[in-house]
Amino acid sequence: MTAPAPSPPSAPIELPLESIVGPRIDREEARQLSGLLPVLVQDLTEIDWRLHEVLGSKYSHLTEAARYACSTGGKRIRPLLMAATFRALGQESTAAIRSLCAASQLIHTATLVHDDVIDHAETRRGQPSMPRAFGVPLSIVTGDYLFVRAFQLAAEYSRTIILRSAEACADLVEGEVLQDSAQFDLSRGREHYLRVIERKTAALIASALGSVAEIAGSTPAIVEDAIAYGRSLGIAFQIRDDLLDVHGDPDLTGKPLYTDLREGNPTLLTLEAYHRLDSRHQAEFERLFQLRRKRTRHLLRLKELTDSTDAAAEVEAEARRWSDRAIGSLARFPPGVYRTFLEWLARGAAERRF
Amino acid sequence: MTAPAPSPPSAPIELPLESIVGPRIDREEARQLSGLLPVLVQDLTEIDWRLHEVLGSKYSHLTEAARYACSTGGKRIRPLLMAATFRALGQESTAAIRSLCAASQLIHTATLVHDDVIDHAETRRGQPSMPRAFGVPLSIVTGDYLFVRAFQLAAEYSRTIILRSAEACADLVEGEVLQDSAQFDLSRGREHYLRVIERKTAALIASALGSVAEIAGSTPAIVEDAIAYGRSLGIAFQIRDDLLDVHGDPDLTGKPLYTDLREGNPTLLTLEAYHRLDSRHQAEFERLFQLRRKRTRHLLRLKELTDSTDAAAEVEAEARRWSDRAIGSLARFPPGVYRTFLEWLARGAAERRF
Repeated sequence: MTAPAPSPPSAPIELPLESIVGPRIDREEARQLSGLLPVLVQDLTEIDWRLHEVLGSKYSHLTEAARYACSTGGKRIRPLLMAATFRALGQESTAAIRSLCAASQLIHTATLVHDDVIDHAETRRGQPSMPRAFGVPLSIVTGDYLFVRAFQLAAEYSRTIILRSAEACADLVEGEVLQDSAQFDLSRGREHYLRVIERKTAALIASALGSVAEIAGSTPAIVEDAIAYGRSLGIAFQIRDDLLDVHGDPDLTGKPLYTDLREGNPTLLTLEAYHRLDSRHQAEFERLFQLRRKRTRHLLRLKELTDSTDAAAEVEAEARRWSDRAIGSLARFPPGVYRTFLEWLARGAAERRF
Repeated sequence: MTAPAPSPPSAPIELPLESIVGPRIDREEARQLSGLLPVLVQDLTEIDWRLHEVLGSKYSHLTEAARYACSTGGKRIRPLLMAATFRALGQESTAAIRSLCAASQLIHTATLVHDDVIDHAETRRGQPSMPRAFGVPLSIVTGDYLFVRAFQLAAEYSRTIILRSAEACADLVEGEVLQDSAQFDLSRGREHYLRVIERKTAALIASALGSVAEIAGSTPAIVEDAIAYGRSLGIAFQIRDDLLDVHGDPDLTGKPLYTDLREGNPTLLTLEAYHRLDSRHQAEFERLFQLRRKRTRHLLRLKELTDSTDAAAEVEAEARRWSDRAIGSLARFPPGVYRTFLEWLARGAAERRF
């Protein structure tokens, strides 16, 4: 086997406005945004190149698998947040954080690949999942490879940053375990749910933005603000993500509906709905939720029971509260168009439809 | 869940002489060795404590799984080599390499855990394998956790060392992929086999010993020697390991026989035997070797065909050649009892029965 010739990432980067900043954007906002987008698309393209480069292996099959995993890795919300934060903190070029952005994207992708193995997922973002496309053994190994390359990239930075990244990864893994520990269990309540998503989703974003602020030479207070912003936005994002499991449009999200319901992962929506039902319907809800193999009619009945309460409205409100909190954390950031963009991103995290 | 109270690793460390230095040890050597062993056992105990400590998580189930994985992780040959190399290079205490030793052991263990998931292994070192004891999902996640903690430990060292460790991990993963690419394939020959084990086994040992030499303040030439020693010893070790798949005593090795044969992993023994058979027996050998589900009689017939050649003798000779090469790499190390011990370790890698 010989190393494949370097080739550009397959598709140009697209940043669908609505997926980023939510549906509620007015004309003036759209005008401001149109000035930023080309810059950020360029940032993301350069990050993608770095990613593409670091995934090269002497073994073309591994390179191919690793690049495939990254190509289905989603909306690049992490590198986008990092680039926008870095620019909001006064930096003119994102070259200094390029490797860190690539590392965050790799860590996120590695966990998705291993998740898809664990969940026997068929698709990811509308494409065949890694285990489906490359088999379980190569998927496990490719996930490991993505982790390793991520740490190699992180090694370009200071010890604080490496340690913060490692700690976020440990949080992430702990989040998985914590989530599994509550599978099929409706008794743990929202505190447990928030602990799970804080680790599973928010920790890596928070850590990445904290490191970005540090590399920008920000004060410790601003570094803490960036961490708080990332944490709250991550929680809003995941609450919304879980809501879309039941109320999303698969054509937009690229994900099948009812995955969490089917797998027995209690989301905030499920917990709030269950909490609001009368005891007879609670019993029915619990029985159906705990079925190891759910038929479509079970899933539809669970949705019907959920929709009979105002749980969805409460969940939307909760996501917005976290997004407001995220926006509040930006108060000490230098005012300007990139700070505004970060506010939009926080709002979008709670309101997006995909 | 609350964090479990710190508790000592469950069993005191044992260093069975014969597993380390091979069966050919005379009385004078045994006397010399008996002076070193308590020191090295103390080193390994302290490394184990570091390991134990870093695996603590807020989630007791993850801590338990991670510690279980490490408890079945084998003979601790990597930390032993590292401690002995550090002392051979004139260091009086191994405190400075403790975290690096723990990191190497964690990386090795992480790959074993993921291997056991991929291979559906039932046992590891005579105990239930991780997937058997904790299920596939938690095993995958625990492997990731071990990787993450390893990198956290590696972050205590210089960038050169972190990068060298990451590169060795990438080699390791590539070795897995390379091995899988030749499953059931007898045509690749010994060059391919050596490329696989160099990456899969030797790279991590070589990298670890190079870093140990660097931390000891050795000259670049000695660092290179340590790397070369680790590489050759690793290859000898793996050739021997693969031989024990067919000629080992499961009571001693703790591993079931014929795993590689069953899975269709061509080892040096298999390749040399196949190469030596006449064309009629080659065809039979190949047909049996390529069976996806082999019965005991198939495995025994493969062994019988192997034993009809002098392949085993050639494989033993090859392992010894690598162990001689390892010993040759120590020529510029300061003479002394630890250098002698490293020579024994190299000899033992090629001659051990478990």
